[in-house]
Amino acid sequence: MEQNRVIYLDHAATSWPKPEAVVKAVYDAMLNDTANPGRGSHAMAVRSSRHIFQARKQLAKLFRISNPNDIAFSMNTTTALNQAIKGFLQPGDHVISTAVEHNSVRRPLEYLKQAIGIQVTYIEADEKGFITPQQVEQAIMPTTRLAIINHSSNLLGTIAPVAEIGEVCRRRGVKLLVDAAQSAGILPIDVEAMGIDMMAFPGHKGLLGPQGTGGLYIHPNLDLIPMLHGGTGSQSEAPEQPSVRPDRYEAGTPNTPGLAGLAAGVSHVLHETVQTIHTKEWRQTQMMMEGLLGIPGIQVLGPELGQPRTGIVSFNLAGADASELSFILDQHYGIAVRAGYHCTPLAHAAAGTMETGAVRASVGCFTTDEEAMSIVEAMKEISKHYSDV
Amino acid sequence: MEQNRVIYLDHAATSWPKPEAVVKAVYDAMLNDTANPGRGSHAMAVRSSRHIFQARKQLAKLFRISNPNDIAFSMNTTTALNQAIKGFLQPGDHVISTAVEHNSVRRPLEYLKQAIGIQVTYIEADEKGFITPQQVEQAIMPTTRLAIINHSSNLLGTIAPVAEIGEVCRRRGVKLLVDAAQSAGILPIDVEAMGIDMMAFPGHKGLLGPQGTGGLYIHPNLDLIPMLHGGTGSQSEAPEQPSVRPDRYEAGTPNTPGLAGLAAGVSHVLHETVQTIHTKEWRQTQMMMEGLLGIPGIQVLGPELGQPRTGIVSFNLAGADASELSFILDQHYGIAVRAGYHCTPLAHAAAGTMETGAVRASVGCFTTDEEAMSIVEAMKEISKHYSDV
Repeated sequence: MEQNRVIYLDHAATSWPKPEAVVKAVYDAMLNDTANPGRGSHAMAVRSSRHIFQARKQLAKLFRISNPNDIAFSMNTTTALNQAIKGFLQPGDHVISTAVEHNSVRRPLEYLKQAIGIQVTYIEADEKGFITPQQVEQAIMPTTRLAIINHSSNLLGTIAPVAEIGEVCRRRGVKLLVDAAQSAGILPIDVEAMGIDMMAFPGHKGLLGPQGTGGLYIHPNLDLIPMLHGGTGSQSEAPEQPSVRPDRYEAGTPNTPGLAGLAAGVSHVLHETVQTIHTKEWRQTQMMMEGLLGIPGIQVLGPELGQPRTGIVSFNLAGADASELSFILDQHYGIAVRAGYHCTPLAHAAAGTMETGAVRASVGCFTTDEEAMSIVEAMKEISKHYSDV
Repeated sequence: MEQNRVIYLDHAATSWPKPEAVVKAVYDAMLNDTANPGRGSHAMAVRSSRHIFQARKQLAKLFRISNPNDIAFSMNTTTALNQAIKGFLQPGDHVISTAVEHNSVRRPLEYLKQAIGIQVTYIEADEKGFITPQQVEQAIMPTTRLAIINHSSNLLGTIAPVAEIGEVCRRRGVKLLVDAAQSAGILPIDVEAMGIDMMAFPGHKGLLGPQGTGGLYIHPNLDLIPMLHGGTGSQSEAPEQPSVRPDRYEAGTPNTPGLAGLAAGVSHVLHETVQTIHTKEWRQTQMMMEGLLGIPGIQVLGPELGQPRTGIVSFNLAGADASELSFILDQHYGIAVRAGYHCTPLAHAAAGTMETGAVRASVGCFTTDEEAMSIVEAMKEISKHYSDV
């Protein structure tokens, strides 16, 4: 089967295409290694275990995690965030979070407010999506147990000062949970050096693996209530969930073909290096921004030209509906972007786009300069049409 | 890549090999359709949505579910069972379950006993693994809200009288949750006719799909607390989880390639028909049982010869350790089986194998008679060795 011809600028949702090695790893696992890892002593089950351990080991290397078993795999970042938030917080706890969080942080917090009685402070971001370590420190109360920070906003591309916030949290005895949905495989991450206690990450975005993969790093000193209770292949006779990691947080049959693909994806990132990938993506966002800012009526959200950001460029065109724009880009130009509210209403409020939504273009590891510039060319044409009306 | 040569008798863990169409569907989706379904308006995202809807539609057809949106996808059966149990039960509730449940039912129940204060009655099974509708009825108390029944024991292959239990539950106002881990794609299931209110199923066993897939049927009249709160692509601006199905129970990026494969797997099952598959598997279990029962020292667990069972034949050899046997079968005969406790300690207690564990051989859709009989031939040789000692 041939690959599609499409100008794919939706990497912040899911990266595409995948490295050949990823597609091959999934294919080979589907063909040969789809036994249950850790639950049989036969050769195929052993190979399945090896794929999964390989994924864990590569991720530990990438994020500087000393023990690979401190990573618990899950279906996606949302699952990892729910495990972290609901498994850690107790009635009466105060949590600090921000206005640029995704609904996968905000909705669990709003749920827990009602269900068990927690308190939440959402730190206001400025209109570029910035928050400061000082804001975090000022929000700390005697009951504060957790701060939850989006490493990079999925709408604005803004990068949070995680290491500095980690320093504040460590000093004040507050645990830090990082949502690395837009930074895993894209920005350098060192969980120890950055003071990160828990980190949720997707397998299918910057790590170049398949959908259906993701995970949560849990500091060895933390013990969470497992979200899933069930079979682990270990201590089968015990009625309670085993304490040994990663089994404690990984009940049920894992996604072996997906994790085989993820191992290959992370290997690709380690080989290219996060620094090289990020530098290339940043350069392309600057090209896109410069082009878009030259078009009358276009407003680009997030950090200024020349400032740090991940591979995301969200924008609006005066008088145009974001969904309509994305439809035209897809149908007339073969450019895949995302339109709408991006599951982050408070970030839209901060950016002043609560009414309009925004078009989000996002580049990835394999995006060419020509592809990045294609949206600028398309928007030049489209904008003329709108200013004529 | 060539497929392995192995005599695979571990279908109760994960079916293998997968139909060609399943491998191809996963491969094609990895190559072309790994965008985020339901969250972008571009063509690739639309194709991703279509794969997932196709899986839902085929499953609805197989299980006679009138609205495909009453199926919520998850990573595996364990996740689906946790969603059902923890999302439904409230403090003070009484639950009826059985001694032949998997740890994916028992561990969530034991957890909830401690965490929120529920009461659980585990109905005793006889040594063949049978429970009766009368036992369920006798266990009902004024506070009973839920009964949880394993459609077929993963250790013994025994088939529970689900429809009769469903009739009791309906009459007495108790909801019925069925664990279809060993029956989905293998036994006829009609959720309406059988009085099933919730049903958890795996994608990677009898439905012939990839690991990393599974789901939960939720009767339209039930409303569960979602296990996952997060982004759904719908009602992004609301702080609470949307009520619309399936979004309510499916936050985060789904496993699109896995679900594309699952759609192909279920199509295969619908085409072959569950009846044909089950009849063939049953015939093979009878061949295996007859052969094994003729070997001195071998005890076969579960229903008698000639009685209904799914494709599972578990056994012990006097004086031999189950793990050792499975190791010899793998290394010397290339036969993949599973040994140990199979995550179901109470079923072992019922069968009297708490000390020894058991070897479980399980056949699948593609198992040949020759493959099924190979374990009998192997055990004949192995048993001689043990009786010599």
